[in-house]
Amino acid sequence: MRILGIDPGLRRTGFGVIDVQGMRLQYVTSGTIVVPSDLPLAQRLKVILDNIREVVQSTSPTVSALEKVFVNTNPASTLLLGQARGAAMCALADSQLLVHEYTALQIKKSVVGNGHAAKEQVQHMVQRLLQLDGLPAADSADALACAICHAHVGPLVERLANSGGLAGGKTVRLRGGRLTN
Amino acid sequence: MRILGIDPGLRRTGFGVIDVQGMRLQYVTSGTIVVPSDLPLAQRLKVILDNIREVVQSTSPTVSALEKVFVNTNPASTLLLGQARGAAMCALADSQLLVHEYTALQIKKSVVGNGHAAKEQVQHMVQRLLQLDGLPAADSADALACAICHAHVGPLVERLANSGGLAGGKTVRLRGGRLTN
Repeated sequence: MRILGIDPGLRRTGFGVIDVQGMRLQYVTSGTIVVPSDLPLAQRLKVILDNIREVVQSTSPTVSALEKVFVNTNPASTLLLGQARGAAMCALADSQLLVHEYTALQIKKSVVGNGHAAKEQVQHMVQRLLQLDGLPAADSADALACAICHAHVGPLVERLANSGGLAGGKTVRLRGGRLTN
Repeated sequence: MRILGIDPGLRRTGFGVIDVQGMRLQYVTSGTIVVPSDLPLAQRLKVILDNIREVVQSTSPTVSALEKVFVNTNPASTLLLGQARGAAMCALADSQLLVHEYTALQIKKSVVGNGHAAKEQVQHMVQRLLQLDGLPAADSADALACAICHAHVGPLVERLANSGGLAGGKTVRLRGGRLTN
């Protein structure tokens, strides 16, 4: 399984690709799409659309994971963020990729073990889990963390769904990236 | 000039196409993209993306106009609306169409002559201006109104921009669809 993680934003959109073989995680690539802020909105969204499509074409992921964005208290910012997120999801769905969504809490809990971990802790744990030489940049780290979260959680969710565990009578809940009965 | 107007929404996205020849407006087509609400978000956005692309392909507009959305007081709704709007803009920009944006105030002022006109007044004026047999549905009417607004305002803005009027020393302001000195 090759996972593309995305941390969407109108000015900067982080992406990170990892391979998963059993319990082993392998770093493939990561980066940040920096969107020129002087372009009209539609063109800025197209930069996100085109660049994510390019990442998908060049890395051929089998699945994608997106961070559920923090709803800002400023409605105008929330709208801009929503539009960037819409562009990112369009690029993924248009490439026939399934899109899984995880909250920041789920991602942090899955990667650091603490849902309220600081940004720096996430960067450090991403470096450790993927055995990177240096600390990844913040946007890349968030996108890679999102991919790692899906690597940890996705197969369990799928297995349970296939075995009828999620649809059956048992109470199975996903809490912050961990399965609890 | 053939204008595609879009009124984006996650559940219902209205579209309307008109031709402009001098002062004459001619209705081409309109409709509503109804998005199944039981699909995952990424798939819902893809429905908007694909359907707008289809409208563009089948009608070949030369330019597009979008309503600047009302920022809802509910942040979650604003985020959803932003995502739908992002998908719509991606479809337009991806089809190499220029995207012009107008506020509801500008559209209503341009179509009805009153920036605070009721929805029904917009529907009635759209029917009259485009000489339609029946009253257009609300979503279609909003999209057609957006296209009509660009038909009224767009050429003036372009002419002024080309003649240096907007960039020059004169104070030229666009207020609610009217040019004022």
